[in-house]
Amino acid sequence: MPASATSGALRPESFALQTVLETLSDRFGDRFSTSRAVREQHANTLTWIENQPPDGVVFPESTEEVAGIVRLCAAHGVPMVPFGIGSSFEGHVNAPLGGISISTARMNAVVAVHSEDLDVVVQPGVTRKQLNEALRDQGLFFPIDPGADASLGGMASTRASGTNAVRYGTMKDNVLALTVVLPSGEIMTTGGRAKKSSSGYDLTRLLVGAEGTLGVITELTLRLQGIPEAISAGVCPFPSVEAACDATIMTIQSGLPVARIELLDEVQVRAANAYSKLSLVETPTLFLEFHGTDASVKEQAERFGEIAEEFGGGPFDWATKAEDRNKLWQARHDSFWAALALRPGAKSVPTDVCVPISRLAECVAETKRDLARSGIVSPIVGHVGDGNFHCQPLVDMDDPADVATCKAFLARLVERAIAMGGTCSGEHGVGQAKMKYLEAEHGAAALAAMRAIKLALDPQNIMNPGKIVTV
Amino acid sequence: MPASATSGALRPESFALQTVLETLSDRFGDRFSTSRAVREQHANTLTWIENQPPDGVVFPESTEEVAGIVRLCAAHGVPMVPFGIGSSFEGHVNAPLGGISISTARMNAVVAVHSEDLDVVVQPGVTRKQLNEALRDQGLFFPIDPGADASLGGMASTRASGTNAVRYGTMKDNVLALTVVLPSGEIMTTGGRAKKSSSGYDLTRLLVGAEGTLGVITELTLRLQGIPEAISAGVCPFPSVEAACDATIMTIQSGLPVARIELLDEVQVRAANAYSKLSLVETPTLFLEFHGTDASVKEQAERFGEIAEEFGGGPFDWATKAEDRNKLWQARHDSFWAALALRPGAKSVPTDVCVPISRLAECVAETKRDLARSGIVSPIVGHVGDGNFHCQPLVDMDDPADVATCKAFLARLVERAIAMGGTCSGEHGVGQAKMKYLEAEHGAAALAAMRAIKLALDPQNIMNPGKIVTV
Repeated sequence: MPASATSGALRPESFALQTVLETLSDRFGDRFSTSRAVREQHANTLTWIENQPPDGVVFPESTEEVAGIVRLCAAHGVPMVPFGIGSSFEGHVNAPLGGISISTARMNAVVAVHSEDLDVVVQPGVTRKQLNEALRDQGLFFPIDPGADASLGGMASTRASGTNAVRYGTMKDNVLALTVVLPSGEIMTTGGRAKKSSSGYDLTRLLVGAEGTLGVITELTLRLQGIPEAISAGVCPFPSVEAACDATIMTIQSGLPVARIELLDEVQVRAANAYSKLSLVETPTLFLEFHGTDASVKEQAERFGEIAEEFGGGPFDWATKAEDRNKLWQARHDSFWAALALRPGAKSVPTDVCVPISRLAECVAETKRDLARSGIVSPIVGHVGDGNFHCQPLVDMDDPADVATCKAFLARLVERAIAMGGTCSGEHGVGQAKMKYLEAEHGAAALAAMRAIKLALDPQNIMNPGKIVTV
Repeated sequence: MPASATSGALRPESFALQTVLETLSDRFGDRFSTSRAVREQHANTLTWIENQPPDGVVFPESTEEVAGIVRLCAAHGVPMVPFGIGSSFEGHVNAPLGGISISTARMNAVVAVHSEDLDVVVQPGVTRKQLNEALRDQGLFFPIDPGADASLGGMASTRASGTNAVRYGTMKDNVLALTVVLPSGEIMTTGGRAKKSSSGYDLTRLLVGAEGTLGVITELTLRLQGIPEAISAGVCPFPSVEAACDATIMTIQSGLPVARIELLDEVQVRAANAYSKLSLVETPTLFLEFHGTDASVKEQAERFGEIAEEFGGGPFDWATKAEDRNKLWQARHDSFWAALALRPGAKSVPTDVCVPISRLAECVAETKRDLARSGIVSPIVGHVGDGNFHCQPLVDMDDPADVATCKAFLARLVERAIAMGGTCSGEHGVGQAKMKYLEAEHGAAALAAMRAIKLALDPQNIMNPGKIVTV
């Protein structure tokens, strides 16, 4: 056993931990690691949140293997952290109390495609791009697309969404069934392949968004969509973020079934031009996509063009060629990296909030004024059809004043969203970073109910402890 | 206090119950009743399930009043049964242990319409038709439409859906936020008005479908839709239920965004002709509706017509006149009463199951053969775009053999659906009648998790006890 596995001060559970590490090493051989590099890769890496590595990382290949790991950890009171690919932003995969990271990297099989039922069964380590590759030949796709090529288990756990959510919903709407290893090590199945059910408590929806605090997802059944007969995409510049938001509100209200409607503020457009070799006018811009038949995408695009014009936007350029569309959406998905390049050497702090759409223009505009006042470079991108937007302040971590300024901005961002009837996170989740806002958002009774549920299912508090709620 | 309130054998809690009845009588005056007639109206009435009346019925007018009632009952260990309008079928509102029925009949205000955000805040006693009346002037509607003019609190509690679910989802998808009085009497708010959130456990979805066993819903925020610019509806006869189901599967797979696609078998068509004065050919028939622009509903209807023809269906008659459409859908919504009229004097036992759509034709066809073999008169209607269908056996309650035959059929119906990967209820819920199927459907671990959650939130088991799970 490498010394690093148990380095540092002796903890109360050090004997129990040692037993678990040795047992996992015996049982999993080279599918278990306690090396510092591997452990650090399996903790938070993408933002300024401290990296808190687990004591060991194990790579199971089946639900039964996960159940065995969980039973072992449960018997010794050792914490566990489910791990997908580590693309979450809010410290979800950190191990503040140490313990075992359970990686689903080797559970990456597409188990069954049911094309007649428009559903698919996957292991949790399958990524969204991998799934869509596997589906393409059958004319099907899975619409949820966070920026990263995240794992589907992780996406379910953070209740992820992305650019298509305005039309196809979030993970909440697209997970039909789960297999979950509970904190006791028992294997539970939830939901089923019927499109709807009124049979009992909705355990599927309870696990989706639970960030691995109630169990380890080991299999998912997901709803699929047929690839639309026709797709068109386009770009529309606006004189201000307010104008772009107002056009979005009107688009949604008038029932236009947009598949994507994404805001990039002028800072993000500049970043995208530089990083993704685009040549857009550097002004607030909407990226859009329409799905349907040839006739209906044409009709949708024309109607959107009229709405944009009403709010001073345009010209609305739209294209139906796949390569043009792909370039556009790749640029949108690369916005995290494009933004980082705006301030070389800086760390970025990507975060998101979501407000009722009627407050979106006001919330984005106030946030931009706040950024300007605070002297922070932060592009804004938004899934504006849902009232959801992202800030990505770029921070010099070696400058305490810069860090303090950014922290204060982030607190105001969340408080502003909550004050407008919104939520501290539209799609990134709570992790470690946003636990402090849950009471303000949900109230004491709801937080107490979350704690009661956590304790009912995880009485030892060993399943991803220190995330969402403290118990 | 009328004698009937405490008639029958003394129960262990009779002193506590007496205290609660007297306190409620003092506190609510004529908004509290212990009369036999009122109590019996507030228990199961619509099917053959026994009527088990509560000891008293109270009519609060606010969340605070509900909280006061719940605190009182909780302090004395007296059971409570939340009550909407009593249109549920599976014994949800029975009081097998007695106690207090909490009627939301007087909590029937539309609190706020947020047309920009496409949401509405309502009290739980508002019915779906009342809500749609209130919204019509603003060009908005709420799509969920169970047959009855149910209350929205009840619809949330049973995770109801109806004919539009194929396009707009079920109550699961259309409740944004709730105010709930927990079994302790604490007031909890869940969710919010943002269109999506990744902030904490999804308590909203846990309460939706919990059938009042985890708390009393006292306010709901619901998603709305814009009334489509164009609506067309139509009727299409088929040579067999299999052909109708296969055409449905193809319609869904090809991505046609049908708003409604409803099967009536030849028995239900006969019932509808008689009851609703229609003159349809008495063969399995699909009722359809399309929402969109003028051009898109035309395109959808034409495409459906082509699909129907492929499966030997047609001619597909479609109409855009509102009065024709309304007559059609009124007939569909009246199918419960139309079916009852097929066998005067009989009780009907309306129930539903839901299967993956690929198994729908097989499941419906086998069910029809089972009915024929059993000599049971039972129309079948189905929200077939979701794989959901209803049977409504008509039973002579005075004939024990008839009752036994029907009970055996109902058990086979559910077992068949579960064996095909389906669920014991697509939209009616569990109530008392389907508790026995939950373990077969969900497995022991999921049922244990449901019990653990129930106990965590309702340790005294006083909130609608004897429904969904026993603890």
